Order: sequence, then structure tokens, then C-alpha cells
Amino acid sequence: MRGVIYAIYGAMPSSNIADALPPLAVALGDPAGVGPEIASKAWERRAEHRLHPFFVVGDVRSIQAVWSGPVVRISEPADALAVFGDALPLIQLEDAGEIAPGHPNAAGARCSLDSLELAVGLARSGAACGLVTGPVSKAQLYSIGFAHPGQTEFVAERCGIARENVVMMLAGPTLRTVPITTHVPLKDVPDLISADLIVSRARTTERGLSRDFGIEYPRLAMAGFNPHAGESGALGREEIDIVVPALERLREEGIRIEGPLPADTMFHPRARARYDAALCLYHDQALIPLKTLHFDEGVNITLGLPIIRTSPDHGTAFNIAGRNQADPGAMLAAIRLAHQCAENRAKAQ
Amino acid sequence: MRGVIYAIYGAMPSSNIADALPPLAVALGDPAGVGPEIASKAWERRAEHRLHPFFVVGDVRSIQAVWSGPVVRISEPADALAVFGDALPLIQLEDAGEIAPGHPNAAGARCSLDSLELAVGLARSGAACGLVTGPVSKAQLYSIGFAHPGQTEFVAERCGIARENVVMMLAGPTLRTVPITTHVPLKDVPDLISADLIVSRARTTERGLSRDFGIEYPRLAMAGFNPHAGESGALGREEIDIVVPALERLREEGIRIEGPLPADTMFHPRARARYDAALCLYHDQALIPLKTLHFDEGVNITLGLPIIRTSPDHGTAFNIAGRNQADPGAMLAAIRLAHQCAENRAKAQ
Repeated sequence: MRGVIYAIYGAMPSSNIADALPPLAVALGDPAGVGPEIASKAWERRAEHRLHPFFVVGDVRSIQAVWSGPVVRISEPADALAVFGDALPLIQLEDAGEIAPGHPNAAGARCSLDSLELAVGLARSGAACGLVTGPVSKAQLYSIGFAHPGQTEFVAERCGIARENVVMMLAGPTLRTVPITTHVPLKDVPDLISADLIVSRARTTERGLSRDFGIEYPRLAMAGFNPHAGESGALGREEIDIVVPALERLREEGIRIEGPLPADTMFHPRARARYDAALCLYHDQALIPLKTLHFDEGVNITLGLPIIRTSPDHGTAFNIAGRNQADPGAMLAAIRLAHQCAENRAKAQ
Repeated sequence: MRGVIYAIYGAMPSSNIADALPPLAVALGDPAGVGPEIASKAWERRAEHRLHPFFVVGDVRSIQAVWSGPVVRISEPADALAVFGDALPLIQLEDAGEIAPGHPNAAGARCSLDSLELAVGLARSGAACGLVTGPVSKAQLYSIGFAHPGQTEFVAERCGIARENVVMMLAGPTLRTVPITTHVPLKDVPDLISADLIVSRARTTERGLSRDFGIEYPRLAMAGFNPHAGESGALGREEIDIVVPALERLREEGIRIEGPLPADTMFHPRARARYDAALCLYHDQALIPLKTLHFDEGVNITLGLPIIRTSPDHGTAFNIAGRNQADPGAMLAAIRLAHQCAENRAKAQ
């Protein structure tokens, strides 16, 4: 199983390069959500999963509220390397106010934003080899004036990259998908997709597969919008009017991309073996297959950034926070993938 | 594995009832497609899969072109019971013209229609305990004046049921889905769905699960249309305006139905364990999870008919016809499911 996961996510870590990399930064997310619990549980399994050293950024009390293992406060990321074997290294933020698992509040939202900001800065400076972000509450963030749609756009802005130029990819052990549109009403999607948008997303995806995943000649697959990819126009024209022209431009640039493929027959095992990532036109087209196959181990990775950024592909789960029920699978996968991507970038230099 | 399949598809066959049932009728579909090959291969595996006796309806030459096993022509369905152990029983149609696997023509389309017509009649008369239909070419059928969208509507008409009152369900070993709209452009779906349509489809689905699958208190799950099922209207209003009112009416009638659920998180194993069938609002929402999980064993079953009708959930595959490459998995599953449903109906009488 381990071998399979590495084979899909990327190459096996080489210990020489791994030793040279700084630790990963893990922003804990909302202190009332499951972020502190899954980060702590991931640390507990560090040996079993051969995790690269990481440190967490947040309020130690959010961990102590849900976990009784050893935590050591550090002031410099590099200190995490020596601490990691024996305790969970933590960079403490200022007081996050009252913390009650499952009960988010404005102070917690500020804490989650501060930890994100600090962790992004450490990754940008090179003190951390990559950034893993825990789940935040968008509703709470909006209530304190957060002006970005989500963490991804915030990280892009802090990295000086226009949000249009980053790509959200969902990665599981046997499938990677990219939703070209995301949190919008499905009926608006036909007006939101364009050949330019598809070309831009495909280019960023191809570069990301090459740079972060170490795939020399990435193979992309593009989903159609309509049933049976429109059946030559009989079941809709988005393929003919938008998708095909985009694919022609991409192929002229030398990008390997198949499609438009009928979305229902492109995600079974033999079909998945034919490509490295599937580009999808709307949220559920990308998320249904990914979560059907890899619900507990899906990783959200942002491509197109100067830094590595991954995130477990689930929410704060306030309903189970503090009950020791959260599965750290996706957090473990996010930490492993961030490290593998950092290694791949380091090797290419 | 066998146990699992039976557990999901329905109860294990009881040999007493099975012995009393007449054989199943299998219409071969287009003679130039893979229908004859997968029906013959299914017969070869009759012992391994403990298949209830069936006979095929079509042109013997379409079988002889792709398979060298024993075929015995019968004139009465009941003769199949004695023949089935030693040879594939066949009811011969009139000459289907020239047959070349992979090269469909009008005579073949007429043959596929004649075999469907005859097989439907035998199922309606009770001479066959159910009907399994092989893949046909819609393009070829349209070219000879076929005026129905597909085989399902034709069968409904021959059974005297309005096409609006039958439901297409896709069934695999661990998932059943019902697409409430099917082969229409995705952008037209918001205008095509209504509370009345959802209520009607859900009622037929519930009755089918009870009558054909032998499930005493069926549990339904209803997918939302938008990402995250619309997030209380922030990402689209179809849930609030259409889906929720339908679910309220259904619950008032005593039908157990959950939803609207975010479509991306309702198909992983723990989620699937919570319902017997998922109602989906558009083609790919139902077909992506089904084919991602069960590409080689998906069965299309028509609910709401006086007869049992199943079909392997794939097309004619003209590109591989005659090459001995076709996988009979879905045909085997369609035959098994038709028999199990026939048994469940017989037991309930």
C-alpha cells in the first residue's frame, strides 16, 4: 500500500535530499475545529508514515484541549528538526482567546488567520520547505473582515501571484483532478468557462505536475461538460464551442491532453491509468470521483505558487471536534505530499 | 465476494422458487455489436455464476461469427430449461442480412428491433420470467425510423406504461443511482427538473426497491444540484426552490429520503451504506460514481414496468466487436439481477 501511494503521489523520498530540507510548516486552522487534533495525531504516526519533520503554528491551548501528547515550543523553524522525534514542535501565537472545541468564535478566526500568515511567511522565506494548512471556517473568517474567498487566494496574494493564475488540484492515491470552476452555482458554469480559462488552467496544471510531482511529460485528460461529452453537439455545444478550441491551442503548445472525454467513463481504474491529472469543468465533476474513491485521504494542493502548499481536503468538522473522532488520514497525506513536492523541486535545482 | 454481490443486489436465490420460474429472455441487441459475444460468454460461465436458465433471441449467425460454442435452436421458451445445461438456447429470427462484427447496417438494426419486440412479448406473456436487453445502436435504429429515444421507452410503450412513469436505475454491487434527467444538455437541467418530477421518480424508485429488490423499507438519498448542495442558497437556489419542497412531500407520504446531500460526499463507502438508492438530478451525477466504482459490472434496470427488464450498462462497442475482447461482466450482472428481481416478485405473490 505504501509503495502504491508513493508511486502515485511522486517518487520515494531520497534520504539525502530529505535530510537537507528544512521542516514543513503546518498552520493549525481554526482552533475550535479538528485541525489541532489531526495535526497531533499525524505527529503520533510520524514513524509509521516516515514523515519529514514539521512544526505547527497556532495556539498550544487548542492542542492541549484535545490531545495529551508532548508539545515543545520552538522559536525558530530549524529547531523542529531536533525536537520532532520526541515532541510536537510548535510556534506559539499570541493568545487566541477562549478555546472550546466545536464552538468557533471571532478570536479563533483571528488565530487561524495569524497562523496562516506566519506559516506562509516562513515558507516564503525558505525557513519551511512547504506549507500545510489546516481547516478554517470561512463563515468565521468573513465575520472578522477576511476579504478573500478562501485560504488559497490569501496564500496566492501573499506570494504575489494573481488568484487567476493558481490552480486547485485534488490529489488522492490513484487520482488527481482540477476543478476549472469551483464554488459557483452549476447553472452559471456555461457562462464562466472559456477557452482562455481552460488553456490557462491546463498550462498551470502541466507545469505543476512537472515541477512539483516530478512527472517529466505530464498527460492531461479533459472532461466534457454534457452527457457523453455532448455527442457531437446533440447533447450540448460547450464541447464544440469552448473545449475543443482550447485543446487545439494546448496541443499546438506541445501539451499532451486528451478529450473532451465523457465524464462518466474517465474515472474507472483503466481510464485513470491513461493520465496524470483530469481537468474538470465544475466542482462536483472533479470532487465526486475524488471523494468517492479517496474520501479519507484527499489532499488539496495549490499549483502555480512559488511555495509548496497542501491542505487536507475536508472542513473544520466542528460537529466532531474535541471528541477524538477525527481521522488524520488526509492530514497525513497532505504532509507527505508537501514533502514529496518539496523534494521534487529541490532535486530539479 | 459472491456473498457481497448478492447482499447488495438482493437476496440469495432460493432454489425452490428458482426451479419454478420460466427462463429469462436475452435480446441480443445489434448483431454487429458485442451483444452476441457477451451473451455467449455469459452462457459459458453459467455454472460459475449459477445462472438461471436463459435463451437468446436473435440471428444465430451473429453468434457463429464470434463464438464457436454449442447453440441449439428452440421454438418455445420453456425448451430452454432442458437445453441450457448443454448448449446456448436460441430463438431464431428471420434473416438479419449480412452480418459483419463491427460493421452495423440497417438490416442489423431491424434484427435488433425484432429481437427486442419478440423478447418483450415473451416476458409480457409470462413465458420468460424477465427480459435482458443487449446493446443496440441508436443511430442505426433512428435510420430505420425507430421513433423512441431508446430501448427503455420502447419497452415501456409495449407494456402500456407512459415513459414518464418508468425510471432508469443503474445498479452495481455497492451502489444504485437514478438519474432524474438523462440525455439532455447540462445547461437545460435547471429548467427540466421540478418538484413533481422528483416526487414521481422517487415514488417509482421506492416501489421498485421494494417490489424488485425485496427491500422492505427502502432508504433513498437525494443529491443536491449545486456544489455543497447550494450552501443554503449561497451557491444556487435549485435545492431551496425545487428539491426541498419535493422531499417534504415525499416524507409526508412516508417515504424515507435524506437530502439534499452534497453530491461529492455521498458516494464514499460509509455514505453509501446509509441508503439503498441515490436519486441524482443529471446524467453524470448518477453515472460518474456508478462507473467510477463499477465500470465492468453496471446494470441498467427499468423500474415501474409490469415486467422485469435489465441491460448491461454499456454500448455496442463496435470498435472491439468480433475480436474476442468484450468483457461479459455487465451482461452476467444483468442476467443475475433480472433473475433475482423475478424471484423477489414471485416470493411476494
